Amino acid sequence: MAEQLLLDPARKPTLAGVERAAEKIAGILPRTPLLPLTIDGKTIWCKAECLQPIGAFKIRGGWHRLTDLDENQRKRGVVAFSSGNHAQGVAWAARQLGIKATIIMPGDAPAAKLENTKKLGAEVITYDRMKESREKLAAEVAGKNGGVVVPSFDDPWIVEGQGSAGIEIRDQMIALTGSPPDQLIVCCGGGGLASGIALANPQADIIVVEPEGWDDMKRSLESGAITPVQDNPPATDCDALQTLIVSPLTFDILKARHAKGVAVSAAQVHDAMRVAFERLHVVVEPGGAVALAAVLAGYVPVTDRTAITLSGGNIDRKRFAEIIGA
Amino acid sequence: MAEQLLLDPARKPTLAGVERAAEKIAGILPRTPLLPLTIDGKTIWCKAECLQPIGAFKIRGGWHRLTDLDENQRKRGVVAFSSGNHAQGVAWAARQLGIKATIIMPGDAPAAKLENTKKLGAEVITYDRMKESREKLAAEVAGKNGGVVVPSFDDPWIVEGQGSAGIEIRDQMIALTGSPPDQLIVCCGGGGLASGIALANPQADIIVVEPEGWDDMKRSLESGAITPVQDNPPATDCDALQTLIVSPLTFDILKARHAKGVAVSAAQVHDAMRVAFERLHVVVEPGGAVALAAVLAGYVPVTDRTAITLSGGNIDRKRFAEIIGA
Repeated sequence: MAEQLLLDPARKPTLAGVERAAEKIAGILPRTPLLPLTIDGKTIWCKAECLQPIGAFKIRGGWHRLTDLDENQRKRGVVAFSSGNHAQGVAWAARQLGIKATIIMPGDAPAAKLENTKKLGAEVITYDRMKESREKLAAEVAGKNGGVVVPSFDDPWIVEGQGSAGIEIRDQMIALTGSPPDQLIVCCGGGGLASGIALANPQADIIVVEPEGWDDMKRSLESGAITPVQDNPPATDCDALQTLIVSPLTFDILKARHAKGVAVSAAQVHDAMRVAFERLHVVVEPGGAVALAAVLAGYVPVTDRTAITLSGGNIDRKRFAEIIGA
Repeated sequence: MAEQLLLDPARKPTLAGVERAAEKIAGILPRTPLLPLTIDGKTIWCKAECLQPIGAFKIRGGWHRLTDLDENQRKRGVVAFSSGNHAQGVAWAARQLGIKATIIMPGDAPAAKLENTKKLGAEVITYDRMKESREKLAAEVAGKNGGVVVPSFDDPWIVEGQGSAGIEIRDQMIALTGSPPDQLIVCCGGGGLASGIALANPQADIIVVEPEGWDDMKRSLESGAITPVQDNPPATDCDALQTLIVSPLTFDILKARHAKGVAVSAAQVHDAMRVAFERLHVVVEPGGAVALAAVLAGYVPVTDRTAITLSGGNIDRKRFAEIIGA
């Protein structure tokens, strides 16, 4: 598999790698703001990754990975599978670098995400989330044209790239408050963002937040071993966080940091989206609002220096109107 | 009138004053991001003032004015009239400085704006927009307790304070693109923001944008003399831009700069709000979306270095859902 040519299995993401990713990203993307939000008299700091050009933090990992491909790899193109945000991150980076991108997306992904990925010039192949294996499909496509597979979280470059958000949070909090965060509450699907942010902030406690029923990272951290999502997980509109099983790469980092997991309900997520709308004036998709939901629900006590991620804002207009208007 | 005690009629807002305001504001408010938006292959830069803590640029003028009050004036408190965003700007600054604020607001202001102004600790007095004069009411209230009236645009401090957004736009564009803007397209009610931004950017062409029927600045600039809104202006949901007549202070600056005026329809404003939602993931209120509306409607040709304002994001949830879901 093309992936194996690239991915040294001994290579682990490192703080130095995260710092390198942050430097590369600073050269092409303005920092997203760290917005203050006061809840019960305490101010938390919200990293508004929904304001990235593709509407999500996934642009970071895509850029770090694709800029490290060699000439030969670039010529062969890249292949990725994603429900939408990683798709756009890879497609954006590929377009900037003149690399062909093929993206495998579930047919039931939000229309906005499908549409935007195509607009970025990627070739989109859809599959049935319930019947087909996206990993298999990606391997097939990559096998055909020799393309490089860019996984959405199980890859040291992706973890380091996403971690650049943690470097920015650290630097912005020092500039705004005089000290780095002591607690980071992070939206979690496969754990790429959470583990990268953990690497970037060795001084902070890490909390990962998932939707109820999709809380495999939480249960893995509690049991000490990787545990998949249980059969027949409930429907969720946190499409960005529907990961069936996490990887040793992300899990080991979070386990070593004694990260804690929290799960939130759909109603709590929708409340958080309304708060982000009214108080911060940003558009956050359900999967991007879980960290804020955990704080608002009182599941995670707020410290003096808590930062959270608002990790994405790609949601169809009509669905957003339903949630916000309720 | 208390206002006269303060307001030296000979004092005009200056670039030096705008620079001083920008320095004061940099000490208390993180810069709002300048978000790129590509339209027909050209990138414009959107100053997202809807991301200010009060959801609008009005926090700037409020801070510059109130921090320049002397001890005696601070003790007497401040009085302002506003449909909502200036109200919140003054209330926010007053709370930070421990000054009592009384705000006179139209009873039909958006519920979110009334609510937020109260939450900031201000005393809110409502009036009937069609029957009562807010200037008279403000003078009465100020007369009673000796408070200092803080006008929403007809005041050199307010113009300079709002102009600090123009300093940030200039500096951010230089950092991001290597050169300052050559064209600035600005939402316009009384012209405080537009004239302040004009002072901050002597190198740029200035375009002001108003809602149809409320385009008194446009018609004033075209005729060369201040012209009020015509009788029975149409209903508009651009509540932040319902100024019946502009002031010599703002008009003279824009006239001297040969600023041009443009008027946009409600449908164009709503389109712009949907584009800001989908492409930038920010919440923009109708009055804050007029500049983007003018660009999208093709009324203002985009240059290589065009910046626009997204000046506010305070809108009721249900109203936003109606517009975004349409």
